[in-house]
Amino acid sequence: MDEFTFIDAIKQHTYKQSSIIKGVGDDAAVFRQPAQDVVTAVDVFVENVHFSRSVMTPFHIGYRALAANISDLSAMGAVPASYLVSIVIPDFWSEDELHDMYSGMAELGSAYGMDLIGGDTVSGKELTLSITAFGYVNRNKARYRSAARPGDIVFATGTLGDSAAGLFMLNNPDDYSDEAFYYRRHRMPTVNAEFASALDFLPRLALNDISDGIANEANEIAQASQVSLTIYEERLPVSSQFGQFSDEQQFKWKLFGGEDFELIGVVPKSRWADVLKAADLSQTRITKIGHVDKLGDTGPVVSLVDHRQLKRRLEQKGYTHLKQVRK
Amino acid sequence: MDEFTFIDAIKQHTYKQSSIIKGVGDDAAVFRQPAQDVVTAVDVFVENVHFSRSVMTPFHIGYRALAANISDLSAMGAVPASYLVSIVIPDFWSEDELHDMYSGMAELGSAYGMDLIGGDTVSGKELTLSITAFGYVNRNKARYRSAARPGDIVFATGTLGDSAAGLFMLNNPDDYSDEAFYYRRHRMPTVNAEFASALDFLPRLALNDISDGIANEANEIAQASQVSLTIYEERLPVSSQFGQFSDEQQFKWKLFGGEDFELIGVVPKSRWADVLKAADLSQTRITKIGHVDKLGDTGPVVSLVDHRQLKRRLEQKGYTHLKQVRK
Repeated sequence: MDEFTFIDAIKQHTYKQSSIIKGVGDDAAVFRQPAQDVVTAVDVFVENVHFSRSVMTPFHIGYRALAANISDLSAMGAVPASYLVSIVIPDFWSEDELHDMYSGMAELGSAYGMDLIGGDTVSGKELTLSITAFGYVNRNKARYRSAARPGDIVFATGTLGDSAAGLFMLNNPDDYSDEAFYYRRHRMPTVNAEFASALDFLPRLALNDISDGIANEANEIAQASQVSLTIYEERLPVSSQFGQFSDEQQFKWKLFGGEDFELIGVVPKSRWADVLKAADLSQTRITKIGHVDKLGDTGPVVSLVDHRQLKRRLEQKGYTHLKQVRK
Repeated sequence: MDEFTFIDAIKQHTYKQSSIIKGVGDDAAVFRQPAQDVVTAVDVFVENVHFSRSVMTPFHIGYRALAANISDLSAMGAVPASYLVSIVIPDFWSEDELHDMYSGMAELGSAYGMDLIGGDTVSGKELTLSITAFGYVNRNKARYRSAARPGDIVFATGTLGDSAAGLFMLNNPDDYSDEAFYYRRHRMPTVNAEFASALDFLPRLALNDISDGIANEANEIAQASQVSLTIYEERLPVSSQFGQFSDEQQFKWKLFGGEDFELIGVVPKSRWADVLKAADLSQTRITKIGHVDKLGDTGPVVSLVDHRQLKRRLEQKGYTHLKQVRK
């Protein structure tokens, strides 16, 4: 395949964003957004490490990779604007498959008015997709993990664990309910860009996107904010057919299943009604799942309260009984 | 190796650029540069495709990868500011080697006041380094390939073919002159950021960085500007010991040898004296190598005139005798 012909085929001929001054076709891209701050993140995905073609089409791979990036922008409160794609192409990927992968990115990108403004295309042994995304946020409105304060409410968008459930179902075919829903949650995850920008009016808000499992992201907020968090297991939002899985699967997936790309947020109690209104406007399901506590003697801790009101420490990749915390 | 510990080790704890609002440590990086345009480019490098550890240390690999990106920014007239690094790490790369690679980037980055503001670190089979660089340029001063006009002067910075010569010398040890110079030109190429920004005052200027060989970049300018270019072989600037190589090697390396990261530029004749002053101020060697002609019947053509005053067509990856052009 000729690189030049390929770039010409995937390149946009017009740009939706008025901020784009130069897109594909020179040494670099140029953009201008004088009144707002620029938010940028990069994510890299490697075949058979981050995705497998046994359960994802090239279209899904492209779609989900860009979704992961948009999710990072949303978690900063930014509106998505554009992206760069660098890609390592092995010779066993066909040109049609590559086009499908770019179509997956373009489909989601277009839904958010994003422009593909540049990239780099090389050969190698493993399909490796690295996307750098750009978004804009009003000045001093970027949403950091460090903004949580004792007394605040902890909430989550959507439902948790569906992507992990979908991946399990794809790898273990059986007679499940709502298969298509869970497949879609894994391959074409929701992003919460509208909801995040609808919260722009809030003076204080912490946001984090759930890419590694809510246990991980809750701990990131606790550490960055130097607070402790309490989360109630029974309040964790799950999909209507989630009960078809074993208790152990449900527990694992909703707490540690990554790539749901839902948001965990923390807001002052006094602003909860406003958050509900913003969720309603952006048609986003949100659920209050816990609260922020003062920092204890043992530093930032996330506690999980189960249905028997037993409290244990929830760590980034697992949990330990709370007695270990209390020393 | 623990990803978290690794990120902590490579992360900057303070930022040099006042434009950086948030660097490493949240979902994305945030920056603000209200009075200027943002320039961004991405380059990806794969082990044993773009570099080999048989002739480059990890330090050189990092240094050269960032140099390639700074070169793209310079070719847009932008001042380098920051970068994101996404990296795929195979298990046969040691933590020390990775640190050395980041040190190579940090050494060059620091020389230009650049900050490492984020990235992504994953595992895979091939070492793959993808750098997204950011620079700032005064509004409407980004330098495009499309700015060349008939009558303009074509110039090049530095000397050409040294990187290709250095790579050849590293792979074919023998009794050469100035070995260290050529090794360095391959492993730690010069970047021309100061010169490019010293030209900011010029109302019109086309720039392109020589990453694939000047034959390629001259053709890119001709095509983007819809003009023809004439380049004089004897004027192409070469290093003092370049005569030690065969005529064929010299010809190939100075015209088609990539990765010199010198600049090819096009300016109106009336501004040539100003360009010389800027070169002097930024201590950059520049050489007038040709001129811009009107578009002929056969479209944008780059012609090479040799020492016998014979003209032939110089194509992106080779050359054909001019009779083929004249039809």
